[in-house]
Amino acid sequence: MNRNDVTEMIVATKIRKGLKWGDVAKTVGLSKEWVTAGCLGQMTFDASQAATIGDIFELPQEAVALLQVVPYKGSLPTSVPTDPLIYRFYELINVYGTTFKELIHEEFGDGIMSAIDFKMDLQREPNPAGDRVSITMSGKFLPYKTY
Amino acid sequence: MNRNDVTEMIVATKIRKGLKWGDVAKTVGLSKEWVTAGCLGQMTFDASQAATIGDIFELPQEAVALLQVVPYKGSLPTSVPTDPLIYRFYELINVYGTTFKELIHEEFGDGIMSAIDFKMDLQREPNPAGDRVSITMSGKFLPYKTY
Amino acid sequence: MNRNDVTEMIVATKIRKGLKWGDVAKTVGLSKEWVTAGCLGQMTFDASQAATIGDIFELPQEAVALLQVVPYKGSLPTSVPTDPLIYRFYELINVYGTTFKELIHEEFGDGIMSAIDFKMDLQREPNPAGDRVSITMSGKFLPYKTY
Amino acid sequence: MNRNDVTEMIVATKIRKGLKWGDVAKTVGLSKEWVTAGCLGQMTFDASQAATIGDIFELPQEAVALLQVVPYKGSLPTSVPTDPLIYRFYELINVYGTTFKELIHEEFGDGIMSAIDFKMDLQREPNPAGDRVSITMSGKFLPYKTY
Amino acid sequence: MNRNDVTEMIVATKIRKGLKWGDVAKTVGLSKEWVTAGCLGQMTFDASQAATIGDIFELPQEAVALLQVVPYKGSLPTSVPTDPLIYRFYELINVYGTTFKELIHEEFGDGIMSAIDFKMDLQREPNPAGDRVSITMSGKFLPYKTY
Amino acid sequence: MNRNDVTEMIVATKIRKGLKWGDVAKTVGLSKEWVTAGCLGQMTFDASQAATIGDIFELPQEAVALLQVVPYKGSLPTSVPTDPLIYRFYELINVYGTTFKELIHEEFGDGIMSAIDFKMDLQREPNPAGDRVSITMSGKFLPYKTY
Amino acid sequence: MNRNDVTEMIVATKIRKGLKWGDVAKTVGLSKEWVTAGCLGQMTFDASQAATIGDIFELPQEAVALLQVVPYKGSLPTSVPTDPLIYRFYELINVYGTTFKELIHEEFGDGIMSAIDFKMDLQREPNPAGDRVSITMSGKFLPYKTY
Amino acid sequence: MNRNDVTEMIVATKIRKGLKWGDVAKTVGLSKEWVTAGCLGQMTFDASQAATIGDIFELPQEAVALLQVVPYKGSLPTSVPTDPLIYRFYELINVYGTTFKELIHEEFGDGIMSAIDFKMDLQREPNPAGDRVSITMSGKFLPYKTY
Amino acid sequence: MNRNDVTEMIVATKIRKGLKWGDVAKTVGLSKEWVTAGCLGQMTFDASQAATIGDIFELPQEAVALLQVVPYKGSLPTSVPTDPLIYRFYELINVYGTTFKELIHEEFGDGIMSAIDFKMDLQREPNPAGDRVSITMSGKFLPYKTY
Amino acid sequence: MNRNDVTEMIVATKIRKGLKWGDVAKTVGLSKEWVTAGCLGQMTFDASQAATIGDIFELPQEAVALLQVVPYKGSLPTSVPTDPLIYRFYELINVYGTTFKELIHEEFGDGIMSAIDFKMDLQREPNPAGDRVSITMSGKFLPYKTY
Repeated sequence: MNRNDVTEMIVATKIRKGLKWGDVAKTVGLSKEWVTAGCLGQMTFDASQAATIGDIFELPQEAVALLQVVPYKGSLPTSVPTDPLIYRFYELINVYGTTFKELIHEEFGDGIMSAIDFKMDLQREPNPAGDRVSITMSGKFLPYKTY
Repeated sequence: MNRNDVTEMIVATKIRKGLKWGDVAKTVGLSKEWVTAGCLGQMTFDASQAATIGDIFELPQEAVALLQVVPYKGSLPTSVPTDPLIYRFYELINVYGTTFKELIHEEFGDGIMSAIDFKMDLQREPNPAGDRVSITMSGKFLPYKTY
Repeated sequence: MNRNDVTEMIVATKIRKGLKWGDVAKTVGLSKEWVTAGCLGQMTFDASQAATIGDIFELPQEAVALLQVVPYKGSLPTSVPTDPLIYRFYELINVYGTTFKELIHEEFGDGIMSAIDFKMDLQREPNPAGDRVSITMSGKFLPYKTY
Repeated sequence: MNRNDVTEMIVATKIRKGLKWGDVAKTVGLSKEWVTAGCLGQMTFDASQAATIGDIFELPQEAVALLQVVPYKGSLPTSVPTDPLIYRFYELINVYGTTFKELIHEEFGDGIMSAIDFKMDLQREPNPAGDRVSITMSGKFLPYKTY
Repeated sequence: MNRNDVTEMIVATKIRKGLKWGDVAKTVGLSKEWVTAGCLGQMTFDASQAATIGDIFELPQEAVALLQVVPYKGSLPTSVPTDPLIYRFYELINVYGTTFKELIHEEFGDGIMSAIDFKMDLQREPNPAGDRVSITMSGKFLPYKTY
Repeated sequence: MNRNDVTEMIVATKIRKGLKWGDVAKTVGLSKEWVTAGCLGQMTFDASQAATIGDIFELPQEAVALLQVVPYKGSLPTSVPTDPLIYRFYELINVYGTTFKELIHEEFGDGIMSAIDFKMDLQREPNPAGDRVSITMSGKFLPYKTY
Repeated sequence: MNRNDVTEMIVATKIRKGLKWGDVAKTVGLSKEWVTAGCLGQMTFDASQAATIGDIFELPQEAVALLQVVPYKGSLPTSVPTDPLIYRFYELINVYGTTFKELIHEEFGDGIMSAIDFKMDLQREPNPAGDRVSITMSGKFLPYKTY
Repeated sequence: MNRNDVTEMIVATKIRKGLKWGDVAKTVGLSKEWVTAGCLGQMTFDASQAATIGDIFELPQEAVALLQVVPYKGSLPTSVPTDPLIYRFYELINVYGTTFKELIHEEFGDGIMSAIDFKMDLQREPNPAGDRVSITMSGKFLPYKTY
Repeated sequence: MNRNDVTEMIVATKIRKGLKWGDVAKTVGLSKEWVTAGCLGQMTFDASQAATIGDIFELPQEAVALLQVVPYKGSLPTSVPTDPLIYRFYELINVYGTTFKELIHEEFGDGIMSAIDFKMDLQREPNPAGDRVSITMSGKFLPYKTY
Repeated sequence: MNRNDVTEMIVATKIRKGLKWGDVAKTVGLSKEWVTAGCLGQMTFDASQAATIGDIFELPQEAVALLQVVPYKGSLPTSVPTDPLIYRFYELINVYGTTFKELIHEEFGDGIMSAIDFKMDLQREPNPAGDRVSITMSGKFLPYKTY
């Protein structure tokens, strides 16, 4: 059994029991973004979180142990994603990537936005012309230093 | 002369004159995100916007005309970006891509977040533990329909 | 069991029972294009549609549940398709892609033809010099907006 | 001078003189789809057509000669297109490719839709919910034969 | 069971029973080239041909049905083949590809040699300096037409 | 100046003077297949052949010298060709590659068809249903030997 | 069972019984280089050689038959090898490839060193500064001929 | 001017003056293999060697200086070589790579054959059945050590 | 069973028994860096080390034998790693690779740092601004020699 | 002029004047590792540092300005490096990447070693068996946090 098997168990049980990620996250007591990423094999749970996840998804003990091991990250099967929803994010980087770079450097100087010390929030934004997906990302700026 | 040459002219003049994208955007009267993307060859300006950009960056007439032609988009030289700042966004898609997919489908059903009917805002978020980059994206949800 | 397994079950039963996609679509009450795409794992059925598909293809309950979950889309095993029929469509994009771009921008300005708010119809076009395949695609135009 | 240089000359003159592909096509007396593809370096003009194109775009004699030579086709710089408009067509093949295959084989048997004995028509389709792009493709069916 | 499994069954039985493709083709009553391609999963048999193949290779009923379904074509595992015999054909295209293009266009104008309305014949050519492989290919010329 | 520049000079002069490869080959006294491949930068001419080519295409002395140097071979810009005519040959390898392998090994045992001790002939084959391209290839069989 | 399974059986038995390739080759009566390549699935054994290999590695009858079938060659999982020992050979081609080309053409004219009519010998070369690996390759020169 | 420009100068002068690598190497006083690799931009000359090379090929002072700078190595334009002569070496690694690995490890244990502390010798081997290319490589064995 | 299966057994047992690599290494009596690499399938153990590893991880006899066979090295599934921790090392090579090259050549001349005669040490470096990872690598310099 | 042009100017002047990176770094007053990376186009200089670099390498004013603009990072032309010195570092990641991952997670938990808040030191390590390259890297550990 590896972490990928655990992800498949979680997804299968979620469908069978008709669970929602938002409710799972509330039971765990953390954001739906982080908990979903963890259930999909991208984050590491501590013992108590793993036990909760194990209860919700009726996982065997070996799977609960695996949830506490840092996984090999990367959730996509190809370097350019084929799924239309995920591709749109890749397209945004292709179109706006150099814009991100210019504006962050203009404001902060040389460095990056951390993808580790990072959190995000995804919400429905009601709109008469059609509801919108609103995503707010917040990552610590990390400057390159001279030495 | 092609659009890429125009981008290089703009960038060279920006460095020489010490301009800031934020100020350019104010003169044009639009957001700094969209104006920067346009100056970097990803968006199409109308005649009046192009004239303003032409004045700011001292562009020849042919370049001003090119700013009004829809460009072949895609601002990165490789399918996996090598620049650390831009890579972090690619990494976020790799790690969180399936999470985006699950949460948007849970909230909206089958469909995508538009990367066309889309806007974003990038801000400095002061923080005693180190300032943060805050990015808010808003894209219309487009549902797949049966037919 | 995952969505790919469901697709294989559907295809195997279709061959064994000698079914036709056109007849399946009529039973479901939707177009043959959308129903076939759904049966091949690219679209999401609602509960009633999934039940009908389940009856036709004698699927187990778990498979019927999976038909109602948004799939990870992308039906081809390689980025350049090897199958001659499918390659011809890829070739059309390679040869006519910039023509699509020029003509759509000339008519509509900067933006795209939606691949989500999209439908298509595929018909046999009788012709004495050899019958033809006729495909009509219709996608909403989505303009890039300034902001 | 090569065919690519001719394409760049044509595009530059088109922008400078504010020409439209539709009007160019009318002068040539053929469809806007075929004429645009030819001007973008994908089709071969005969002597009279090339002379007309040469007049419209003020091309030198060497360029007019090149328009009559069969070009090395393929108009895109990468195997997966980065431009959002062109990518949507690639996405359609990724999502609907196996559907095209199933439905054409169901109707016609083993074979392909020709991308050579092929024509297409691209129109604006007015729609109160937003105008649509309508594309009709027609290609001869070519059967695999036993031998 | 899928078409690839059928190919593996055929190849295993061929080795076990010491069959030859040439003899299989004679029993089927078609060329050895087409029959071998079909047995290797690239062509579609009709009911009577499939029954014959099923008898020769002792295939189960499900396999015989699969032989009559149009397969997803493409028989090589990598885009540049690693097997030395097959690579030599790829090398010929690499070295002579532009020559094919020039000579066919010189003789026929713009268009292609069909790979669908196509047949070939492979023979041993006795030669005192070492026997030679002789391959004769014949494909219909398909012209690009203006429209 | 490199061999690629020489190829471009030859092609430009051929267009300007309206030459035909078949006539060039007759003047050189060799097959049109080999001479065209040489003119396109894939073969090495001897001093006398190079002088003839130099006369026909009005090449400078340095170019005539380069025609006598063994070139770095490979005439295609991408590993999967984008040009429809050349792609059809690649498709034939994809579909028939394993058939070539089976039939050649059945007739000759383990080994390859040489792509070096190789010649070919390309002819128009008149046919009331549409003329055909006929290509005859002949390559020495080279057996793997044990040692 | 396929040839790859046979290779795995051979390797597993070799480890279990502590065999050496050099001794296997002596029993077969051929060079250790060719026999090892054959055991690793790259060469074709005749009936008597296959029987010997079958005895040594305790292979079932089906495996012995497979050893006599020409395999699909290519023993590496990626186009740039990751294993350090094998990579060093790839590096030699990267660094010395054009040198091989220049020196062979200087000595022999246009053509190649055969990789089919080829043999090699790998030996330990004692050296006080550290023993060396000595590899001698011998391949027939095959000239390109005009025709 | 960069090292690649120097290589092009050397090659152009070699063709113009009809020089041979073997003679150049004799003048330099080293093997033809190493000197050719150096002239092709893969090795670093010392001051005296560079002066000699500069005299032979009539290089400007800046080029002579560049010959003494360690180059960025790698002489091939693609990861799988397209040139038939060079490809044969790549094919040998593909077919014999795992054999090299097995035999070297059998003789020496875990480690590699150095591609740095390495030399080789390339000779014509007369043979009544056709002369052969003989290449002898010698590289120090470097063992992995535990620590 | 192959080496990869052994790695999976080791990792599963490590999780189940809550072992630490540092403690495993102490029992084996070597550095934690080398022992971990070996347990992950990259190094070769001798008989006594393998027996110790077998005891710790409760491996079957066949697995203990496999630990003593030189593995096919390369521990990552893609050529550009997707895991954020491992990617950072790849990024360092991308950003600092040419710097490594310049500084090592400035100090040592043409040659490389051995990745075989190599050892490393990974430590926690306490720091009030956040603890740091400290890695010390030491590899023998291997000079290119003339011959 | 772009940053790459500035790098080429710096490298050309360094060769012409026989400068050493170590001395350049001393004049700038920072480490040789960071200064070299900056001169090779990977880091951003402040005004005073850029002026010093400009003096040393006799750069024009426009180049000095470019040194103060954050560059698009990534110094290698291919995703797998071809240069033997740089490849050895890539090989270390391939062989030891999962070891880095295991040991850092064992010591620190889930997170990464920063490649931004990072410094390194490269030294010659005298050794009677051959001098060694010693590289010490130090990067801040950045933990993934739950939210």
